[in-house]
Amino acid sequence: MVAAARPRILHAQAAGFTHQIKADRSFVTEVDLAVEQQLRAALAAQFPDHGILGEEFPAVRPEAAWCWVIDPIDGTHSFRHRIPLYGTLLALLYHGVPVLGVIDLPALGWCYSGARGLGVTCNGRPLRLTNPSPDDDLRHEVIAVGDRKQFIGEGNTHWFDALMQAHPSVRTYCDAFGHGLALQGSVGAMLDVGLKRWDLAATQVLVEEAGGVFHVLAEKPQPDGGPPHYDVLFGKPAVVSWVRQVLELDRP
Amino acid sequence: MVAAARPRILHAQAAGFTHQIKADRSFVTEVDLAVEQQLRAALAAQFPDHGILGEEFPAVRPEAAWCWVIDPIDGTHSFRHRIPLYGTLLALLYHGVPVLGVIDLPALGWCYSGARGLGVTCNGRPLRLTNPSPDDDLRHEVIAVGDRKQFIGEGNTHWFDALMQAHPSVRTYCDAFGHGLALQGSVGAMLDVGLKRWDLAATQVLVEEAGGVFHVLAEKPQPDGGPPHYDVLFGKPAVVSWVRQVLELDRP
Repeated sequence: MVAAARPRILHAQAAGFTHQIKADRSFVTEVDLAVEQQLRAALAAQFPDHGILGEEFPAVRPEAAWCWVIDPIDGTHSFRHRIPLYGTLLALLYHGVPVLGVIDLPALGWCYSGARGLGVTCNGRPLRLTNPSPDDDLRHEVIAVGDRKQFIGEGNTHWFDALMQAHPSVRTYCDAFGHGLALQGSVGAMLDVGLKRWDLAATQVLVEEAGGVFHVLAEKPQPDGGPPHYDVLFGKPAVVSWVRQVLELDRP
Repeated sequence: MVAAARPRILHAQAAGFTHQIKADRSFVTEVDLAVEQQLRAALAAQFPDHGILGEEFPAVRPEAAWCWVIDPIDGTHSFRHRIPLYGTLLALLYHGVPVLGVIDLPALGWCYSGARGLGVTCNGRPLRLTNPSPDDDLRHEVIAVGDRKQFIGEGNTHWFDALMQAHPSVRTYCDAFGHGLALQGSVGAMLDVGLKRWDLAATQVLVEEAGGVFHVLAEKPQPDGGPPHYDVLFGKPAVVSWVRQVLELDRP
């Protein structure tokens, strides 16, 4: 269902697309809107009783026991600049808990999917996160972060800067691409801030199901009544623990 | 010729590969060695009088008027971690000046190529760098940098940190991937340090031929007699000028 949106997305990257500026001053393209409508229509046809929560349109039955969460283009800034590291995110919540997740990266042709109790695959290849062996130097691990501007927005640039100072290989692999790299163990952990529900639900179930850990560091209601923001840290357990130390998250 | 190395590279990413640690403590895989041998053999067969300079094997006729420069896997750290943003670089120098360049990104299936006076294409699509219009806010441009550890190695972390502080959208798109993004205008400029000759020759001719600027900020002979390191800044002229201001490169 998610991969069915790829042709539309890749065509728009090649041929161009229009955009508008949303009320919150963020950038949205015609492709975000079209892909979310395509997924909503497919879900409504197959699961008429389920709820749907998406980034671009009003929620449908958000109180339903089963609720789908959609981010049609995660990484709009990348998409806008034709940087091929954007993705489409889909998750299914059961009473608010993510139980199924899909992260699709159209330009790479990579699709991560999995569900609680059923394991996680990338293009059919099973994924299993393991800690680096005790002999491995953690300095060889790559650690992913979002853009520094996300940290500016959330008032925690000290996290971004502390991690950059502490580790030689911190890379800004924002959004769905960084989440996928964490799932396949290419990055040892990812620290990502200012996310909305639809940015993290798929990743949460996939990381936990692959044997990693997913920590919600903060859930922040927004003064304007908009959806809450989340700061999260996830990946291989030992690398996540090390990042927690660097950020002094466990200090009394 | 360069794209002919893709199957070997992609197979190794999927199936695994061995590696060794070089005398300079850098990491080299069997794939680096095999790809460089493959390209050297193809070049020697077609251009028996030309010189060849490569990252992994001794130079052949480096004093020849026409000399090829090869980096079989640019982005070894990415390759090692199965981050799909590595590439193969090839350039032709005439009396030391790059006149032809190829940047191939196997995992993306993107190949940038061009030559002095003949223009630049990506997968056959012509590329032309233009300045943002005066109405465009430069804050919307993405600026690429190498890993902070490259800046640590070259003693100029102040550049990395100043750029991160000054611009909301600085991303660590190291190596060939960042160079390609600069060529297609996805990033407005890239600041990259500690490069060797084979890391920059293709990019130099391609950026200049696409209408961008390529500034060598420093050429540094190495005390151990190894190849000199270069710090470079390239991209759209107006964005490069702005980065020069941030780094205070033109202060008397």
